[in-house]
Amino acid sequence: MDTSAGRELVDRVQELARHSDSAQHYTRTYLTPAHRAASRLIAAWMREAGMQVREDAVGSVIGRYDASVTGAKTLLLGSHFDSVRNGGKFDGVLGILVPIACVAELGRRGERLGCAIEIAAFSDEEGARFQTSFLASRTLVDGGAALADLLERRDAEGISLGEALRSAGLDAARADAHRLDPSTLAAYVEVHIEQGPVLLDEGRALGVVTSIAAGLRYLVRVKGEAGHAGTVPMPRRRDALAAAAQMVVAIERRCSAGGSLVGTVGVLRVKDGTANVIAGEVEFTVDIRSADGMAHAAAARDALAECEAIAARRGVGLECTKTHEVASAPCAAWLQDRLAASIERTIPGRPARRLPSGAGHDAMILAKVTDVGMMFVRCGAGGVSHNPAETVSAEDAGLAHRALLDFLRHFGR
Amino acid sequence: MDTSAGRELVDRVQELARHSDSAQHYTRTYLTPAHRAASRLIAAWMREAGMQVREDAVGSVIGRYDASVTGAKTLLLGSHFDSVRNGGKFDGVLGILVPIACVAELGRRGERLGCAIEIAAFSDEEGARFQTSFLASRTLVDGGAALADLLERRDAEGISLGEALRSAGLDAARADAHRLDPSTLAAYVEVHIEQGPVLLDEGRALGVVTSIAAGLRYLVRVKGEAGHAGTVPMPRRRDALAAAAQMVVAIERRCSAGGSLVGTVGVLRVKDGTANVIAGEVEFTVDIRSADGMAHAAAARDALAECEAIAARRGVGLECTKTHEVASAPCAAWLQDRLAASIERTIPGRPARRLPSGAGHDAMILAKVTDVGMMFVRCGAGGVSHNPAETVSAEDAGLAHRALLDFLRHFGR
Repeated sequence: MDTSAGRELVDRVQELARHSDSAQHYTRTYLTPAHRAASRLIAAWMREAGMQVREDAVGSVIGRYDASVTGAKTLLLGSHFDSVRNGGKFDGVLGILVPIACVAELGRRGERLGCAIEIAAFSDEEGARFQTSFLASRTLVDGGAALADLLERRDAEGISLGEALRSAGLDAARADAHRLDPSTLAAYVEVHIEQGPVLLDEGRALGVVTSIAAGLRYLVRVKGEAGHAGTVPMPRRRDALAAAAQMVVAIERRCSAGGSLVGTVGVLRVKDGTANVIAGEVEFTVDIRSADGMAHAAAARDALAECEAIAARRGVGLECTKTHEVASAPCAAWLQDRLAASIERTIPGRPARRLPSGAGHDAMILAKVTDVGMMFVRCGAGGVSHNPAETVSAEDAGLAHRALLDFLRHFGR
Repeated sequence: MDTSAGRELVDRVQELARHSDSAQHYTRTYLTPAHRAASRLIAAWMREAGMQVREDAVGSVIGRYDASVTGAKTLLLGSHFDSVRNGGKFDGVLGILVPIACVAELGRRGERLGCAIEIAAFSDEEGARFQTSFLASRTLVDGGAALADLLERRDAEGISLGEALRSAGLDAARADAHRLDPSTLAAYVEVHIEQGPVLLDEGRALGVVTSIAAGLRYLVRVKGEAGHAGTVPMPRRRDALAAAAQMVVAIERRCSAGGSLVGTVGVLRVKDGTANVIAGEVEFTVDIRSADGMAHAAAARDALAECEAIAARRGVGLECTKTHEVASAPCAAWLQDRLAASIERTIPGRPARRLPSGAGHDAMILAKVTDVGMMFVRCGAGGVSHNPAETVSAEDAGLAHRALLDFLRHFGR
């Protein structure tokens, strides 16, 4: 029974992944035709599981399964269904499909719990299209205020977020009407692929998240002087790309100091880059995180100071803008304990592994208004994520399904 | 008189620059609407100067001014009218407009010379759109063979070179019919903005090129492993961008050894780059040149060996493809002497400055079939080129016009 539930979950992940912006690889960015089709499929699966389904102002799909009594609080579950470019198929989606499978199981057996269950399929978490982050969960929590500065932001084709919402038939002005009422919430729980190697290395299928890493993100712009690649002597150059490259190396070195600290330059663009032209302007992103303490803030300070020193030595301009800052979000102790107990009942023999999350999750945003908990599912293929090789086994998906169902039944008593 | 000729030349440069792919800056890439409009304007100016005009199979415009006698050889003049992205307005264009102004002057006075004059306005030298180099002059010299491997090459929008030619009404199959007959040629002479600071630093308006630098160009592809920016510990990463950045720094260092050696990474692209994803694949270009000897070849060998060592240390894959190789092209001594004599008659007082060209020019391609000479015009604004600040003063343009006219009259005696 569990194996078949796990296999069905993996099949649904694959079926959902067919809705991709690209035929070559899995990419589903916000409000593209593939993204809209995925949202319709998720809504259909929610309805099939016996849920009432609504769509909010930014395209998140929310299914509701009523409690056995009226006036009960709501346990919110969820995750996101957008992806990074050329990403992994389980990232986000698992945290929507496992809860749907659990509700379907309750529905088949005619079970109602002492709390209502809602499942939020968040439309935009990665933000690959409009360079946003947590747009959908922020909007659910904060209403229209979360969108205020974003509607004019444009994607690579020049389409604004406002235009994309209108084309999809969505009305940003309704964001406040769809806003969560925190007083109705019992908690938020998110199931997610670990996206790292810890559970894999320790031979465990499931884990309980203790806290979600704090993160800082910057956009750095280096301004040098364009010139002809054949004629400007090396000592006279102010090469923006050579300067940026030296900065990237310095950032990597500073963020390799150990502990949970990580630092990444994932985007680097040369403006009007041409093979025979010295780069005049380069911009790149910096993403620095640590799961505990303020190691990330100290590393960011040092790394940016090094960038400034490099810029000064090379005579290039440097602009550095903080684009994103998330405080670390601790998971509620009582939810950690309940999730651990469910995992231990599902996989008896040793205490559940508790671990921090290096990745950010919608749970960080929900933590502003309610207690949050997270369950991690082992990441196969060496622990890679944001990568087409990302995978979860059918067996592990089945265990996640059993553990979450156990959690729901105990939670709803 | 000379000042007005110079001013008229600069006005024409400005007028031609209005035909740009972008309203924000000057960019004219191969076969765009702006590029086709520029070609029509050049053809109109050639006709106005009294020339017969033809267009070859790849959109180069060739004007002919007959000799005083039949059966005389042809002196070919010319340069290119495409640009790099966000480039300078004088680059290439000056070497078309100065000869047209000289022919117009001969035409006004009813002068015919002992040789025919042809002016070739080459349609594609920079190759910014299809990542080609010297496409137009290669086709004029080698016919269809120069295009054989290029017709399927695609621009950033996915349009192939073959499709772009057809859309422009050009017939690549006619390339052989338009091929130059070297036996009819007396020489090839190109006027060009220096694109460097030498003449500017020495207070000279004009110079004679001794030889054109040899160059090597590579496309380097680094393959690491994509992963989540928050979850993969630094020691487990195989970050393609951090590796590429270290390579860029190493290449710059090796090419700073002195002399005429220069090395440039002008393009660097992160495949599917996203701020919160460790880069899985990066490609970048390497352009290494030296004006004398084989310094560039030794530097390229060392720099690529360093890239390989970096790739091995980091466990990333490395593919390196040579995309371009030009041998150095010496300018013919007799043409150097004649150009120097014309410059000295135009600007008396000291011997003409002779200098190598670090930049490549169509003259390198013509050197395969005839003797070539080049006259450099001082580059204002600190000697920058491939940059919107690139400029030539009206006075210098007027001096170039006078010197070239003097050269033509002596050449054609």
